[in-house]
Amino acid sequence: MSDHQPGVAVVAGGAGFIGSHLCQALVARGHEVLCVDNLQTARPSNLQTLEGLPGFTFVEADIVRPLPEAVLGAAERVTRVYNLACAASPPQYQADPEHTMLTNVVGTHHLLRLAERAGARFLLTSTSEVYGDPEVHPQPEGYRGWVSCTGPRACYDEGKRAAEAMTFDYARMGRAEVRVARIFNTYGPNMSPDDGRVVSNLICQALADCEITVFGDGSQTRSFCYVDDMVRGLIALMESDIDGLEPVNLGNPVELTVGDLCDRVLALTGADARRVVFKPLPTDDPRRRRPDIGRARDLLGWTPRVGLEEGLAATCEWFGRELATPVEAARV
Amino acid sequence: MSDHQPGVAVVAGGAGFIGSHLCQALVARGHEVLCVDNLQTARPSNLQTLEGLPGFTFVEADIVRPLPEAVLGAAERVTRVYNLACAASPPQYQADPEHTMLTNVVGTHHLLRLAERAGARFLLTSTSEVYGDPEVHPQPEGYRGWVSCTGPRACYDEGKRAAEAMTFDYARMGRAEVRVARIFNTYGPNMSPDDGRVVSNLICQALADCEITVFGDGSQTRSFCYVDDMVRGLIALMESDIDGLEPVNLGNPVELTVGDLCDRVLALTGADARRVVFKPLPTDDPRRRRPDIGRARDLLGWTPRVGLEEGLAATCEWFGRELATPVEAARV
Repeated sequence: MSDHQPGVAVVAGGAGFIGSHLCQALVARGHEVLCVDNLQTARPSNLQTLEGLPGFTFVEADIVRPLPEAVLGAAERVTRVYNLACAASPPQYQADPEHTMLTNVVGTHHLLRLAERAGARFLLTSTSEVYGDPEVHPQPEGYRGWVSCTGPRACYDEGKRAAEAMTFDYARMGRAEVRVARIFNTYGPNMSPDDGRVVSNLICQALADCEITVFGDGSQTRSFCYVDDMVRGLIALMESDIDGLEPVNLGNPVELTVGDLCDRVLALTGADARRVVFKPLPTDDPRRRRPDIGRARDLLGWTPRVGLEEGLAATCEWFGRELATPVEAARV
Repeated sequence: MSDHQPGVAVVAGGAGFIGSHLCQALVARGHEVLCVDNLQTARPSNLQTLEGLPGFTFVEADIVRPLPEAVLGAAERVTRVYNLACAASPPQYQADPEHTMLTNVVGTHHLLRLAERAGARFLLTSTSEVYGDPEVHPQPEGYRGWVSCTGPRACYDEGKRAAEAMTFDYARMGRAEVRVARIFNTYGPNMSPDDGRVVSNLICQALADCEITVFGDGSQTRSFCYVDDMVRGLIALMESDIDGLEPVNLGNPVELTVGDLCDRVLALTGADARRVVFKPLPTDDPRRRRPDIGRARDLLGWTPRVGLEEGLAATCEWFGRELATPVEAARV
């Protein structure tokens, strides 16, 4: 990176869980980083860590509205636009489903226009949710999915599918160079204790000495990618010279049941298994989810490196510190 | 209808093919009609016919932008909002795919807000395209579809799926009473001669004494609903007291191949079969399409009444008159 000026990277959703790690990695690569976030679901402490970094600027803005001058005014120096903006856990994205849909469609539209104006490369973080409750396992990128467009998850799932459609149209029309990552479950430090996702729920409940909730009978499977691996994958995809007309799955293909995950968290935290309670599965909750990462491996030379033991231990340790502060603990 | 005041019906896309017939039917039922259209694909002559009707007002506006005062100012008298706005044939909706997506998502958002403000009932015309290239035949409403969200048809297909998602979220949140119709291929007078749909293409080419194009080998199937039946179905759905949380297919379940359709058009117009040429199928063109209309029949008592012979004859006759004017004929 030495004599090369990587320019300004805009990171929408940069104060969020994955976004905050990405901002740090981009600063480390020599980018100036313009983090655009509406702070809807971001943890303020993520931002505190970032604000001391050289070349890092935070702009509080909602990408549903036209981008502010603080972003548009920098357009001529922008070389990369990363879109990670959207509440990603069901309780959060279902709280205002209209805003979730508009974040994905209108927000992506605004950021694509910025990339077009800047001549910058654009990366959309899409999601494994575009596969819905998949009938094909593991899911390759060519699988079209089994998504309900009428149910309570549709604001997110269909919003992301619509954002992909618009992104690929920009590429087909030569308006911007694009990359689309379909990211699978990711975990690690900087997750919100209260975002309702299974890893943070289980760890926080185990640490907080309350009921530990497993939805369904725990036999549904997930695959969890440590956040450092995910960020490395996003940057590798953005910086690769691949033809951007196809999405690329990013995730960890090691599959385990939610019950197994729960057991590992109990072991790491020393929590008593008798605290586990089982509750009904939410509507449209996918039964199985595992990425086929053949494309990422072949095109980017990317595979996850951090094993589940190592990643879960680091995450439990981080949550342990976070929850030691009374304010955070009270929110769980 | 006599002493009942049905109030104002807003019809977005009311100058289009189906919209123009709907406006006429709503005026006949005693509605004041506010037709909102950007005239992107509407035939000016559709509008000429409508503008003489009592209680009919035309507002030229694009629903992607905030609704104009001419519509918002009438909100307190609006009782019905029909959204039929979107270019519907592939060459037209692919010409500006970003606008197609925004028409479906932002346009529907604006009209839902109008319905919420007015306390009006909202009807979205969704499409059989939400089923993509279906693996289930015929398609019931519970089938989740086989749609590519990365291809050139996605701006329309995914735009409609996103519009459905947003519409059902309004209903779930109690913000508006909604109805969603998934409409299958429809034909009849007021179609554009140059919109690229198979019925208008075949009839116009047959009448215009030029090459008659069949895409693929003609074995792909379609089901065609005459426009009068479709309009009757849309109004029946809007006025029904059903729980609006499920979409309703509207279309004619009589299935025929495109090759068979071509033969019928040749017979009706007297065109020479040697003029037929075969061209490659477009990307993602569905191979089969036929509605399961069990729900419409059970809930609304609706079934199509106009047979293909009768409907095609009326359509050929109408196109014959239209194409007799040199301006229209020159556009084919």
